[in-house]
Amino acid sequence: MLRASIQFILYVNGLLLCLLGMLMILPALVDFAYDHPDAFVFVVSALATFTIGALLAIASKTSKVPPGRTYLYFLTVSLWLIVSIFASIPLALSPLEIGLVDVYFETVSGLTTTGSTVLTGLDHLPPGLLLWRSLLQWVGGIGIVAMAMVVLPALRIGGMQLFRTESSDISGKIFPRARQIAAAMAIVYGGLTVTCIIALALSGMSTFDAVNHAFTMISTGGFSTHDASIGYYDSVAIETVTIVFMVLGSVPLVFLARIVIEPRAASFKNEQVRGLLLTLAAAILLLMAWNILFRDVSVAEALRQSAFNVISIMTSTGYATADYSAWGSFAVGTFFFLFFIGGCAGSTAGGVKIFRWQIMLRTVLNQLRATLSPSRVVNVQYGGRSVDPDMQHSVVTFFFLYLLTFGTLSLAVMATGLDFLTAVSAVAQAVGNVGPGLGPVIGPASTYAAIPDSAKLLLALAMLLGRLELVTLYVILMRDFWH
Amino acid sequence: MLRASIQFILYVNGLLLCLLGMLMILPALVDFAYDHPDAFVFVVSALATFTIGALLAIASKTSKVPPGRTYLYFLTVSLWLIVSIFASIPLALSPLEIGLVDVYFETVSGLTTTGSTVLTGLDHLPPGLLLWRSLLQWVGGIGIVAMAMVVLPALRIGGMQLFRTESSDISGKIFPRARQIAAAMAIVYGGLTVTCIIALALSGMSTFDAVNHAFTMISTGGFSTHDASIGYYDSVAIETVTIVFMVLGSVPLVFLARIVIEPRAASFKNEQVRGLLLTLAAAILLLMAWNILFRDVSVAEALRQSAFNVISIMTSTGYATADYSAWGSFAVGTFFFLFFIGGCAGSTAGGVKIFRWQIMLRTVLNQLRATLSPSRVVNVQYGGRSVDPDMQHSVVTFFFLYLLTFGTLSLAVMATGLDFLTAVSAVAQAVGNVGPGLGPVIGPASTYAAIPDSAKLLLALAMLLGRLELVTLYVILMRDFWH
Repeated sequence: MLRASIQFILYVNGLLLCLLGMLMILPALVDFAYDHPDAFVFVVSALATFTIGALLAIASKTSKVPPGRTYLYFLTVSLWLIVSIFASIPLALSPLEIGLVDVYFETVSGLTTTGSTVLTGLDHLPPGLLLWRSLLQWVGGIGIVAMAMVVLPALRIGGMQLFRTESSDISGKIFPRARQIAAAMAIVYGGLTVTCIIALALSGMSTFDAVNHAFTMISTGGFSTHDASIGYYDSVAIETVTIVFMVLGSVPLVFLARIVIEPRAASFKNEQVRGLLLTLAAAILLLMAWNILFRDVSVAEALRQSAFNVISIMTSTGYATADYSAWGSFAVGTFFFLFFIGGCAGSTAGGVKIFRWQIMLRTVLNQLRATLSPSRVVNVQYGGRSVDPDMQHSVVTFFFLYLLTFGTLSLAVMATGLDFLTAVSAVAQAVGNVGPGLGPVIGPASTYAAIPDSAKLLLALAMLLGRLELVTLYVILMRDFWH
Repeated sequence: MLRASIQFILYVNGLLLCLLGMLMILPALVDFAYDHPDAFVFVVSALATFTIGALLAIASKTSKVPPGRTYLYFLTVSLWLIVSIFASIPLALSPLEIGLVDVYFETVSGLTTTGSTVLTGLDHLPPGLLLWRSLLQWVGGIGIVAMAMVVLPALRIGGMQLFRTESSDISGKIFPRARQIAAAMAIVYGGLTVTCIIALALSGMSTFDAVNHAFTMISTGGFSTHDASIGYYDSVAIETVTIVFMVLGSVPLVFLARIVIEPRAASFKNEQVRGLLLTLAAAILLLMAWNILFRDVSVAEALRQSAFNVISIMTSTGYATADYSAWGSFAVGTFFFLFFIGGCAGSTAGGVKIFRWQIMLRTVLNQLRATLSPSRVVNVQYGGRSVDPDMQHSVVTFFFLYLLTFGTLSLAVMATGLDFLTAVSAVAQAVGNVGPGLGPVIGPASTYAAIPDSAKLLLALAMLLGRLELVTLYVILMRDFWH
């Protein structure tokens, strides 16, 4: 059984490396088209990755899915690790003059759709390399949604079992089979991307920029082709389009699929989406008020800057149009706490996720009522059904591990010499897969180039932990797992 | 019923004000003895407080305890508010040249045994005033333990019901009646104080300093009679005595009472105490290693400084012998996270408290195991018995409310203009009733004098919230409470 599991894990890894190798052909073609010598790097990387993947898949070829679910933990973790290593080959071979730690940091930041960067001078990088960064986020996003819909509910991680039942419900009504769900979601993801490219191009972006930004927008990734991010364009039209697609990217993909496929039967009521929109509105109003009252910003400018940057951070995208680190400590604090909220589960957004906050808040309100009148104990309701104790415990466990992880990694990053604000904001954004940190060192006006290599590795670990929803990795570290 | 409750609440408040007025005679006597004109202030304050208290008690005299438990919430909150207002009269009348907000901040910081101060030049203050500050912490400590043993378990707040059963057990075995528990604990509290005075005097403190520091040490308060706190003496003997009594102050009083009264029958095994000592040891070793490896401090000096300041912070006392804010950001981060841990429930220490961390950690480990093998669901054990779901929910609720309170008040304090580190450390220490903050503005080498009045009021609120274990106040704010 152990042998069968290892064989299966190697086989799936091999197949995925083949796909990754094939994906590297796209940037090679773009570099050819732009007549850039960097094309060679992508051809070599593609050949190497595809060959190794193919050899691995052939050597371990199997059609037997192992019994049980334990192998899924290992499979998930190994896929993220191995893909992140091979995906960094093109950056390692490129003439970027950055160290291997920087290469790995940038790749993990891409695949996890975090969007933190160590690169400056993006505006003058080879086009293939820029496209590769964007593609990493776009395919990383697909992987994240697939994991959130299939793996995490099966493993009952962090309350995600809530969405197993939800997607099963849907499969009964709208999509007859799992394959059709996957197809519908792929169509929506692709359709959103194409729509986004067109909208950005119509708003005045070059085609190349529109393609890249659509890839990193739909996946709430946040890599840009310009050092000044979306601020480069200084265009209300582009910012508006970006806002719309960042929000769409942080909404559950299956929710969008339902609306698109069965617009009449589908319900627009979704507790998570409503929670996301209300929280966004509250945070935007708060920062607007702050900017208008204490920073003498006009109402229009306050709306424009607050809306864009709040949505960018809470959807865990990470584009910037302003250095909000310089808006005073109230704004810094607000953005810091937004790192912890995040988007909807079932989307590419990171953070704790809206539904966990909702379930926690309801649990707490319930308990306060029970404190007052012990006889009146009622179940927590979510999405029209009762949240069972196991699910509630999963959510509590996720919260607590999230905070413990944040605290421990923050201390470790402080031990590398970074100051308090830089360290806590770097770790909070990394575990939440957001992108920019806070303060002068790693804020939205800066990059992660200046921090020590040890801190970069810790942050890469934080990004992976965030994407694995912590529990996937922590379970493997438990003694019980090895019995 | 409502009328009976109000009458009873007024009556108890009146009685407590009488006691408070009588307590003010002590500093008056000391000022007389030192021939200081400030004695007059205390005589006036004592007369005013006693008279108002007596009038209130006579007007609302009742022997009927209201039915139900709802009135207990209001009684507890009103006692803290009214006592803190009247206890600030002597500071308001004294020639201190500080504003009323500062007066209230200092008084609340005293009564809640927090120990944050806005005063400098302590070394030259009238002796009566110094004694009054120390007395506030000493009687505040009695109030906190009484509340933790009687009110909070009855209201099932934050998992404190765990200690109702514990103390009931004890009352069955060792103490026949509730009055005897109270008497035993009062004797231990008083005995510890006297022992501490003697130990400090033998270590070289003046009698006046020894009395003051004993009052603020046993209550894990942290007010000193010198601006340099315990660092003023630069004495290993005094620091050692202080360490011992700070730890004793953060251990459950009923645990000490048991050991003293029935040394043979009593068990020295107590999960909370063991957890406290282990956490202290781990934190001390961590900071020792940091100081030895990265700050070139000798082993002996590292032990001395780390042990004293870690114990001072984790027991929520707040004395200082060094400016650990200048030990680098790793030390700053470590002290920041220590603010959240705290001492044992049933003592005068603040913070989240050890037993809640233990129950949370066990809940999470349990859930991780259940994630792996869903059939193996076991109950969380604590202190040799099973933690029921209601108690578990109380603990989770407390944790979550603690973090929400911390986040919300931090943002509010940042809105007053304070920087990120100052704001988050000020609020974290205030909710945890610790004392000094972190960073140059409010660190151990500074005071709270320089921060805006609005921030001081927010911190005073945070201290009270921490002492009311949050839930006591939040329940009153709920709509259900008023039905």
